[in-house]
Amino acid sequence: MNKSSHSELFIPFLHLETLQHPRYRALFNYIQQRILSGQLPSNSRLPSTRELADLLSLSRNTVKQVYEMLQSEGYIETRQGNGSYISAQLAPNRRTQQARRQPAYQPIRLSTKSTQLEQIRPLYHQDREQRLLPGIPALDQFPWPAWQRSVGHAGRQMKFSRDQDYMGEPALRNEIANYLNATRGMHCTMAQVMICSGSQQGMQLTFSMLLNPGEKVLVEDPGFPGIDGAISNAGGIKVSVPIDRQGFRSDLALTPQQDARLAFITPSRNFPLGYTLSIERRLQLLQWAKQQGCCIIEDDYDSEFRFDGPPLTALQGLDGEHSVIYSGTFSRILHPAIRLAYLVLPPALVEPFNRMRGFLDGGLSSLPQLALADFMSRGLFASHLRRMRKLYKARRDYLRQRVDPLFAGQLRWEPSDGGMHSVFLLPAGSDDKAIVAQAMQAGLGIRPLSYYYDQQPPRSGLVIGFAGDSETQIEQALARLKPIIEQQLPLSAQI
Amino acid sequence: MNKSSHSELFIPFLHLETLQHPRYRALFNYIQQRILSGQLPSNSRLPSTRELADLLSLSRNTVKQVYEMLQSEGYIETRQGNGSYISAQLAPNRRTQQARRQPAYQPIRLSTKSTQLEQIRPLYHQDREQRLLPGIPALDQFPWPAWQRSVGHAGRQMKFSRDQDYMGEPALRNEIANYLNATRGMHCTMAQVMICSGSQQGMQLTFSMLLNPGEKVLVEDPGFPGIDGAISNAGGIKVSVPIDRQGFRSDLALTPQQDARLAFITPSRNFPLGYTLSIERRLQLLQWAKQQGCCIIEDDYDSEFRFDGPPLTALQGLDGEHSVIYSGTFSRILHPAIRLAYLVLPPALVEPFNRMRGFLDGGLSSLPQLALADFMSRGLFASHLRRMRKLYKARRDYLRQRVDPLFAGQLRWEPSDGGMHSVFLLPAGSDDKAIVAQAMQAGLGIRPLSYYYDQQPPRSGLVIGFAGDSETQIEQALARLKPIIEQQLPLSAQI
Repeated sequence: MNKSSHSELFIPFLHLETLQHPRYRALFNYIQQRILSGQLPSNSRLPSTRELADLLSLSRNTVKQVYEMLQSEGYIETRQGNGSYISAQLAPNRRTQQARRQPAYQPIRLSTKSTQLEQIRPLYHQDREQRLLPGIPALDQFPWPAWQRSVGHAGRQMKFSRDQDYMGEPALRNEIANYLNATRGMHCTMAQVMICSGSQQGMQLTFSMLLNPGEKVLVEDPGFPGIDGAISNAGGIKVSVPIDRQGFRSDLALTPQQDARLAFITPSRNFPLGYTLSIERRLQLLQWAKQQGCCIIEDDYDSEFRFDGPPLTALQGLDGEHSVIYSGTFSRILHPAIRLAYLVLPPALVEPFNRMRGFLDGGLSSLPQLALADFMSRGLFASHLRRMRKLYKARRDYLRQRVDPLFAGQLRWEPSDGGMHSVFLLPAGSDDKAIVAQAMQAGLGIRPLSYYYDQQPPRSGLVIGFAGDSETQIEQALARLKPIIEQQLPLSAQI
Repeated sequence: MNKSSHSELFIPFLHLETLQHPRYRALFNYIQQRILSGQLPSNSRLPSTRELADLLSLSRNTVKQVYEMLQSEGYIETRQGNGSYISAQLAPNRRTQQARRQPAYQPIRLSTKSTQLEQIRPLYHQDREQRLLPGIPALDQFPWPAWQRSVGHAGRQMKFSRDQDYMGEPALRNEIANYLNATRGMHCTMAQVMICSGSQQGMQLTFSMLLNPGEKVLVEDPGFPGIDGAISNAGGIKVSVPIDRQGFRSDLALTPQQDARLAFITPSRNFPLGYTLSIERRLQLLQWAKQQGCCIIEDDYDSEFRFDGPPLTALQGLDGEHSVIYSGTFSRILHPAIRLAYLVLPPALVEPFNRMRGFLDGGLSSLPQLALADFMSRGLFASHLRRMRKLYKARRDYLRQRVDPLFAGQLRWEPSDGGMHSVFLLPAGSDDKAIVAQAMQAGLGIRPLSYYYDQQPPRSGLVIGFAGDSETQIEQALARLKPIIEQQLPLSAQI
């Protein structure tokens, strides 16, 4: 052992915590770092494998393996009959390596559009521990044992899955098409159904496909704020269109001067107010889209839960498969952990969307798709929805019955025939955001109605989820809300 | 029953095939279509519910339900004591509805970037029935019973899953970080790991985050063609950089004039040639990235399968968590149906990537993530990889041994120390694409080497997958390849 073999450098290795790594990897990392730092300079000799094995009480094979790795990655070279040396070629680079330690380097620069996203209304974080949270189904009612059987089935089916294209598992697409045709008055085949990991992914894909930077998208105001990021990411311009009790004001929006490419709407139940788009405006929208070569995105987020009759007919069913992209999701109506959604595309868009999907994402895991297909084919999806429709109606009715006396003159229910949340208006001029900020502190997930407004003068109100809470939980939550509203509303305010 | 109630219009309904829909939905659709077509004009009276129920032998409740749906969607209105009438408001729109039938409308216009994708080299379709297909693991060796146990575990765990952010299931991210640190010489924590549905999704996200339209991305030539679509979609410009046996020619690419923002490289094993990036060039690349605020994407598609020693150290491990985004996938090394991949991000990028992900996609289903986490935590992933490493080495060796005598002078193996495919060079000037076109007809999934070249003068050769084929299958496939090569190569051609 001579000085030039730097044996003393290995003493600290004996004291290192190496439990997290295999020993060969720990020793490799250790030597590599000392080479890069210059402590083991170019052309200097390493201890022999036998020396180092003795010193570190490692097997000689481990040390040999490390030296082979160092050699194959170019850190050391063997010189005939003379042991292992730090590579000569490393010399100039080691200087740059030392320079790297000075914090003179640049942080990675983000793209303009990613920094623009910081300007967008942030989405409320969905904390499932909160009560009265909109958009969350009754998690404790989800039929886990039945779902687990479907999951087991999917685990066995997975080996037969063939991803012939990027549209998704054929079994699931077939179930979805049948379901939509049977219950929503839609006309589609499984060939038009594309599975996505969430509505957001479907929107991102749609805007990539149909929108050039600088082009306009018509959106409802108030409306779904989650769409802003997807429009911004595509470089699109959002045009806010007011709504009334007949829904999206197509009479205002579809002027000859309006050169929008897309309309993103919630015809069955405006989000968050719950108004339904009238048949006249539906026909107006379809005519506009067809004449202009534009596309209507029908976001149908929770229309399954209509309490006063069957679900309304989807706009897609009126369209003749030309202009409407229908967007549906299972995360809201079944369970958030499922994270499966879908688009129903006009036939002419299937092939281009499929090609883009191949470049952008390449499709999703077959496992949850096969599980959901099995769950649907056994009738469990339909029966769960039926059960939830009854339960949510009872919860909605309970919420209304309790709010009316408790918050007389303070909160007024805005009529809607279904859904998973209700809107309660506050007296004009009251600060719904302040109420919500305080309510969140008290563990409530209610949202301020004004948050969903963009350009239109906002109405003040509370968006209160009822689907996920039992009557007892609703009762307790309202008791927590009461003092907050008392404190925030001036005594004179009345609605 | 009087004439104005249009009872005769309902006769065809009796003959309709209504098995696909619930009867109420079929009747609703039928009436709706006749209203929109003008056969049931505005202000005309519908038969009473009793009349129609009798006529169609339906229960009166069914017909009532349909009339209620028609009313709630605005198609009909009840007039006091006088039955149901087609809505007066529909009159002007029905004309537009009729106009719609004339095929005068515009097709939906696609975005410029989506039509640009049509210009891109199309990806070869992966038909798993083909032999010698690159990038496909040994599907028949996948441990299905063990995987199914993990799937069952995931089905039970799913109810406890909490999607606190869009990075993915914490259990899986933890397993991945431990695995990479232990085997690839990486330095990362689970906080840096983001789960994606495929490498393509990771790249799409990365380019959205880091690239402005018109900015440059350095890529290897030859290299991975799947990246072209993601660069094009972000509006980026691809700059092809040649490679040699030391890998990516950073000495040519990283000139002061070069103003690229990103480099997309395969340092462990260049795709498809298998060359390893030298330590000198690794350090050069890292220095460039740090000084310019640029980012290096390390695509590590199959480095787990190194036959002559442990997997090489990832570039990420040299980086000090600053400039390298590491991209790995399970679809290639485990099973294509799993469709899970991941990014390891520099800590500074975690929060911005997470925010973008929330806008673009919102995260993935927890089910396959929890299954894979369980599979890894039980040591099954590591042991499967060990088993496959041995098997693939044997298959690679067998392929070489058989090609050498069978195709002497026609195919020459290009040395590489691992992977799931081998490159065999053809005589200069031979048409590898013609050979592959014919081979695909014969059920072989081999690829022409020239396909992977972009700007550089292409070498002619065959990219032959061996991981998915048994020795018998390899033997049979080569026997099918032999006459094709005999026919395509001139007798004089020799390599």
